[in-house]
Amino acid sequence: MTPPTTGLPAENTTDDNDHLVQSDDPEHPANLIPSLCAKFWTLGWVTGTGGGASIRDDDLVYLAPSGVQKELMKPSDIYVLSLAAQAQSLSRRQRVYLRSPPVYKPSQCTPLFLAAFTKRNAGCCIHTHSHWAVLVTLILEQQGSKEFRINNIEQIKGFGKGFQKSGNLGYHDTLVIPVIENTAHEEDLTEFLEEAMDKYPDTYAVLVRRHGVYVWGDNVHKAKTQCESLDYLFQLAVEMKQLGLPWITDIEPTIPTRKD
Amino acid sequence: MTPPTTGLPAENTTDDNDHLVQSDDPEHPANLIPSLCAKFWTLGWVTGTGGGASIRDDDLVYLAPSGVQKELMKPSDIYVLSLAAQAQSLSRRQRVYLRSPPVYKPSQCTPLFLAAFTKRNAGCCIHTHSHWAVLVTLILEQQGSKEFRINNIEQIKGFGKGFQKSGNLGYHDTLVIPVIENTAHEEDLTEFLEEAMDKYPDTYAVLVRRHGVYVWGDNVHKAKTQCESLDYLFQLAVEMKQLGLPWITDIEPTIPTRKD
Amino acid sequence: MTPPTTGLPAENTTDDNDHLVQSDDPEHPANLIPSLCAKFWTLGWVTGTGGGASIRDDDLVYLAPSGVQKELMKPSDIYVLSLAAQAQSLSRRQRVYLRSPPVYKPSQCTPLFLAAFTKRNAGCCIHTHSHWAVLVTLILEQQGSKEFRINNIEQIKGFGKGFQKSGNLGYHDTLVIPVIENTAHEEDLTEFLEEAMDKYPDTYAVLVRRHGVYVWGDNVHKAKTQCESLDYLFQLAVEMKQLGLPWITDIEPTIPTRKD
Amino acid sequence: MTPPTTGLPAENTTDDNDHLVQSDDPEHPANLIPSLCAKFWTLGWVTGTGGGASIRDDDLVYLAPSGVQKELMKPSDIYVLSLAAQAQSLSRRQRVYLRSPPVYKPSQCTPLFLAAFTKRNAGCCIHTHSHWAVLVTLILEQQGSKEFRINNIEQIKGFGKGFQKSGNLGYHDTLVIPVIENTAHEEDLTEFLEEAMDKYPDTYAVLVRRHGVYVWGDNVHKAKTQCESLDYLFQLAVEMKQLGLPWITDIEPTIPTRKD
Repeated sequence: MTPPTTGLPAENTTDDNDHLVQSDDPEHPANLIPSLCAKFWTLGWVTGTGGGASIRDDDLVYLAPSGVQKELMKPSDIYVLSLAAQAQSLSRRQRVYLRSPPVYKPSQCTPLFLAAFTKRNAGCCIHTHSHWAVLVTLILEQQGSKEFRINNIEQIKGFGKGFQKSGNLGYHDTLVIPVIENTAHEEDLTEFLEEAMDKYPDTYAVLVRRHGVYVWGDNVHKAKTQCESLDYLFQLAVEMKQLGLPWITDIEPTIPTRKD
Repeated sequence: MTPPTTGLPAENTTDDNDHLVQSDDPEHPANLIPSLCAKFWTLGWVTGTGGGASIRDDDLVYLAPSGVQKELMKPSDIYVLSLAAQAQSLSRRQRVYLRSPPVYKPSQCTPLFLAAFTKRNAGCCIHTHSHWAVLVTLILEQQGSKEFRINNIEQIKGFGKGFQKSGNLGYHDTLVIPVIENTAHEEDLTEFLEEAMDKYPDTYAVLVRRHGVYVWGDNVHKAKTQCESLDYLFQLAVEMKQLGLPWITDIEPTIPTRKD
Repeated sequence: MTPPTTGLPAENTTDDNDHLVQSDDPEHPANLIPSLCAKFWTLGWVTGTGGGASIRDDDLVYLAPSGVQKELMKPSDIYVLSLAAQAQSLSRRQRVYLRSPPVYKPSQCTPLFLAAFTKRNAGCCIHTHSHWAVLVTLILEQQGSKEFRINNIEQIKGFGKGFQKSGNLGYHDTLVIPVIENTAHEEDLTEFLEEAMDKYPDTYAVLVRRHGVYVWGDNVHKAKTQCESLDYLFQLAVEMKQLGLPWITDIEPTIPTRKD
Repeated sequence: MTPPTTGLPAENTTDDNDHLVQSDDPEHPANLIPSLCAKFWTLGWVTGTGGGASIRDDDLVYLAPSGVQKELMKPSDIYVLSLAAQAQSLSRRQRVYLRSPPVYKPSQCTPLFLAAFTKRNAGCCIHTHSHWAVLVTLILEQQGSKEFRINNIEQIKGFGKGFQKSGNLGYHDTLVIPVIENTAHEEDLTEFLEEAMDKYPDTYAVLVRRHGVYVWGDNVHKAKTQCESLDYLFQLAVEMKQLGLPWITDIEPTIPTRKD
């Protein structure tokens, strides 16, 4: 990926910083967010302008705006924000954008994406309204549970072991995803998301009851892989529930005969 | 969007007004209806020539014709009608088209689309045969109900508060969509659709029992967003029903600690 | 559609008649069968080389071959057969092709497609392995039934009233599709398909138990519309079964107040 | 398919053998694996970098690497290995690649693909994480079964009769797919896969409990056809289970009246 310019070059200080979202490189965050979101739309993750995605490149954060049809988004619709500048801001609730699109308003997801970037050093965060995620939170609600737990499914290997740990989860490991309750205003989820991050330091995702899921990763590749793997597991979990199959089982490891 | 010519320019009065559906702008209604319908076909909303869409641009109404394969529609298949001219017509049941396609007949959905435009000032109306919509009406039929009600699901925020109201519904609000009974002839639905609009002045959609749904909005963006959000909720509702989960719940709002 | 050459022009009698499948017109049957089958593959109708489609243009019948991956088919893979020549053949089981592809063998579906063309004057016949169709035959098998019956669903209007009848079925009409038992060899289905056509002269489709469905129409447009509508109804029927909803109901027609 | 160069031409011995994955022919294995995997991604078979595919062309084996997003794979990501050279290797667990991609690590699936090539002379092997496959293994686990068995479904004809046998299974034949237990490390599945091949010499697929399925065939066409047919049957089997329909039935063959 061609590194996008960080901060404001002298010759651009008077303009609207549109250069921050202009690149011929398909891997540039301003191009990648629209192409990713178009793909997510076909998966049913960002229906009806719901959901979104954000990419961090060093100090710069690229954000899909509010209310945009995700399969039609353009690079010129993207917001850009500096983490350093934001940290110096007097209010957590007020955000200063280096670059704003001419039409759309900022997404209410912004502080949640920022939490993944600042608290977990994530490089990408994806928010979906996948109905598999929503159904899992509803099934857990009936059980009075605030954790999604599943083990002994191969796809669990799609997740990293945790924050600043190397390697991935194993087949026999239990994947645990915390569930937080939804709030009337999406921004208000931030403190609960951060609480969940503190309580579950190794999680790469937080489910939001009756709403969807936030998934992050060290980079776009890892965030997308973890989000796909999680959606796969949510779908499987709902289908297992319909068939009366438990999500957690106690399986004795199969030991191969080491031949060489 | 380049505004299409309203009415008949002097130099065109003798021709067939084909210029009304000819534009290089992909956002022109005559181009947008086919591209939207092709997308809707992949979603299963307009299978087997069912369903349709109409866009209003000021006085001009653009309509998909009857019996066309929705993923293969062309701009030249589009009907155009003037609302003002229609209002002066002696009969509500007879319609005068400014421009007609050479092959197809007018859609029986036309008076239902017109109701959304004249009674609600809508800019776009979408009609789907989505089987999620049909299943919801069947489940409600078993319960003897004429209303789909759901609350405490994030995607409800995808709907406006109502006719001439600003802002959108909130997470805790209950979305209510009236259900009308199907009639042998689709045109005959019009009076029942209008009755439902009168009874539920803030609704942006009406379900038709064993048939599908009509969804509208102030413009194409809002109609599509509301139609996608509704289909998402219908699918979720059917899946909730299969899992024994209720559509309406009494949830105490989660109050965040305001930190700044 | 540019009419393809009927029979063998003098200057071509010595060649392999490849010109019969060569055309720049996307609506030419040799181009249309591959593009339709690619679309059907995405719908899950022709998975694993199953299913197929055939188009009749006057005396000439164009056929997908056996064992081809349906989303990868090319015009050069198409068989062409003359109905008149076939009628003069000594054996119903032996077929004389005007044009054969260099690689593939003829499809065992051929005599079933020919039955639709000769007994019903169809212009197109589609055979799918849609699992919705198979599930419907399995549900009916449990009920000891040889007929799929459904009424009071709008999509039923997607079907013509019947052979040599004008107009379509109405909302309150009951759509009846006969089910024949599967045979070890697909060709052997022919006599049972023809029996079903005789017993149900107005049907445009025959279900094959544990196998799929054959659907035809006067032309490609009607065959495709009826096939899509039927698959929609089969899916709806399976989902209704899962929700405990009956396929046949006694609904009193809703009568509108005629205002003008 | 243009046969790729086997072994190392003299003029290339010092380079990195990148020519082995460079071809303009879309049917070249290095091009075909990425295009197949992109298609499989849309089918949900290789979500979250799971699953994979390998093609053997005479002595050369082409392999998708570990951890690649399957819909984004490029020919330059492909590993190439010589079967003859591998056979001379001192350790089964150590593999010598003729060509390695600059970024990715070898896939843990490699020894399982090699088993299909060396023990069954397969030309292509596909590994999916399809959740239909996983659900089938979970349903069988509840029944204490290590075999998936289904009969009297037309799609069963999509499978060959078995290793070095000609012809395909018939409609009344019972398709039997063995299930092996999953291991913590995917490589460790190899000995159990090979055991299953020995015990079920005619199978073209092995299910892996809570993981997915390995499917192979004499060539790419046959492997893909068998993999699609199997996924179709797994989906059907899960839906049959949800509807309370048995997978194995005793059906008397329908005998046609031979007329000519």
